[in-house]
Amino acid sequence: MKAAVYHGPRDIRVEDVPDATIREPTDALVRVTHACICGSDLWPYRGDLEIYGRPGRTGHEFMGVVEAVGPEVRTIRKGQRVIAPFAYSDGTCDRCRAHLQTSCRTGGYWGGLDDGGQGEAVRCPLADGTLVPLPDDADLSDPRLAAALATLTDVMGTGHHGALAAGVSEGVTVAVVGDGAVGLCAVLAARRLGADRIIALGHHEHRLGLARSFGATDIVTERGDAAVARLRDLTSGGVEHVIEAVGTAGSFATAIGCAVPGGTVGHVGVPAEPVNLLDVHGRNVSLIGGVAPVRAYIPDLLTDILAGDLDPSPVLDVRLPLDGVPEGYAAMDERRALKVLVEVAPA
Amino acid sequence: MKAAVYHGPRDIRVEDVPDATIREPTDALVRVTHACICGSDLWPYRGDLEIYGRPGRTGHEFMGVVEAVGPEVRTIRKGQRVIAPFAYSDGTCDRCRAHLQTSCRTGGYWGGLDDGGQGEAVRCPLADGTLVPLPDDADLSDPRLAAALATLTDVMGTGHHGALAAGVSEGVTVAVVGDGAVGLCAVLAARRLGADRIIALGHHEHRLGLARSFGATDIVTERGDAAVARLRDLTSGGVEHVIEAVGTAGSFATAIGCAVPGGTVGHVGVPAEPVNLLDVHGRNVSLIGGVAPVRAYIPDLLTDILAGDLDPSPVLDVRLPLDGVPEGYAAMDERRALKVLVEVAPA
Repeated sequence: MKAAVYHGPRDIRVEDVPDATIREPTDALVRVTHACICGSDLWPYRGDLEIYGRPGRTGHEFMGVVEAVGPEVRTIRKGQRVIAPFAYSDGTCDRCRAHLQTSCRTGGYWGGLDDGGQGEAVRCPLADGTLVPLPDDADLSDPRLAAALATLTDVMGTGHHGALAAGVSEGVTVAVVGDGAVGLCAVLAARRLGADRIIALGHHEHRLGLARSFGATDIVTERGDAAVARLRDLTSGGVEHVIEAVGTAGSFATAIGCAVPGGTVGHVGVPAEPVNLLDVHGRNVSLIGGVAPVRAYIPDLLTDILAGDLDPSPVLDVRLPLDGVPEGYAAMDERRALKVLVEVAPA
Repeated sequence: MKAAVYHGPRDIRVEDVPDATIREPTDALVRVTHACICGSDLWPYRGDLEIYGRPGRTGHEFMGVVEAVGPEVRTIRKGQRVIAPFAYSDGTCDRCRAHLQTSCRTGGYWGGLDDGGQGEAVRCPLADGTLVPLPDDADLSDPRLAAALATLTDVMGTGHHGALAAGVSEGVTVAVVGDGAVGLCAVLAARRLGADRIIALGHHEHRLGLARSFGATDIVTERGDAAVARLRDLTSGGVEHVIEAVGTAGSFATAIGCAVPGGTVGHVGVPAEPVNLLDVHGRNVSLIGGVAPVRAYIPDLLTDILAGDLDPSPVLDVRLPLDGVPEGYAAMDERRALKVLVEVAPA
């Protein structure tokens, strides 16, 4: 089968790899229909962080059709369309039961020496705990619906996790730092949770336009201290709830600065750099969040997407076939794409 | 009057300064009976952080007798013995009412160009909001009681804040990172809040002996990754509640490592260095805490001290007169003293 393979910075190739197969009795074999390229995939691409090894299989966002299941798989059936969260998990350990599937005692992440999502098929460990079936009548030939559902593999659930971590609820004002796919999904999530006022902080006109269409009521385009000053002007001194969706030291500083004393920053941006916590300390700002247990959130968010109440599909603004994965990385790296949907076998 | 003045690293002098006076109608003039030297006072002493300016008045932990009050002071009376928290606050703004007095809209900190606690007298702004009177029958000629009460100006309230931030409650297991005065007070606070098992992490035999006498049930003396490994061995993988009472990048890493996925680090150590948050992110560990609003905690802790149910006095293991303040800094810097009580006018 074909799959994308990381050979080093700016060297992703789609090439022949061993066929995915069932190895454990709890595995499912999933034929991939759609995959995505994640902002965090750009780290190894840019040489900032080694994730996959070399050569290593890439991608952790995919959905598809179950082609076979191992003998101990109970709830997932051959022929089902399924969404995979970006981490697999058993669904039965104490951490999964506490809805922290990303810390599952037997779970793990895709890619590297195992199958990645950016390929024709994936061996899915712990299929019962991991995969979420779609209703049989979900029409994935609708490109908009397919894209919306593909965001459930990561960015929509991650934005939702940030909003929950920040304590967003009915009627609150929230600031969202970052206008990437996760930040935009955090705007959607905050609106869905009932936030009254949503202030999006970013620097890209196209993306901030999407933020407005997703429910942002205010836009702040300044950077650094000027962004914090502008946010405080808009809000009489800051907000109780901030979502950090970037992960740099600077974006953390901005997010912390936007919070009032005693406020909360819900962070989902991977903190690639150490963070100065003096302002956190001086004003008792809580930092809550981390890698999102998106498996916990897929069922509810899926219901809303299928009902037409939630549509994150616009964050996937470029579509490419599997052979186009290298171009997809380049397009995201050069900001020609916000986020790429890889149509592996969409029919 | 005489007071300690910072002239630069390792250059603290007790010298003549202008008499403290009432300047605002909400001021009180407090004759200092007892002051303390704080671990954070060592930062400027060591040249690590400029706090007070040069020359600048030092000290933020003191108690004493009210000598005079301004015309708008309503609840504090001349002749009362009072405890001052390490920050002054109006007691009436939204943040004070939310028990976040360290972020009071009109409050501030002692020292620098204003009077510091390490002197014969202090002008106390916002006296009604700031000072906590002692009962008339409190016997401050008892050195043990005087020392116990002096910890309420900072370290006992700060340890308590760490325990609250970490979510300590009846029956839990808690790890305390740091065996300085704040860490030891955090052990006391955790015991007072009902923790069942308290694991103290530190490196100093004398201090860890105090930790045991304060209620620590387990001691971990390893450093860094080995400390985390030992803690995880002791606890089947970590604890839900960790108190960070040091503030270095290393102690934060240890504290974060001691937490289970989804656990909480209550931090009160001033984060003097940027902190790596990758482990926080990967395991969704919450960071909650900051500078302690000790004003909020003094009344309850005072009640327990006066009732004989709480005794943090052993953390003040060296007593010196006001002229001995420079020696007190040296003794703490060289770890000959855990924490110094300055008996300014104790009679």
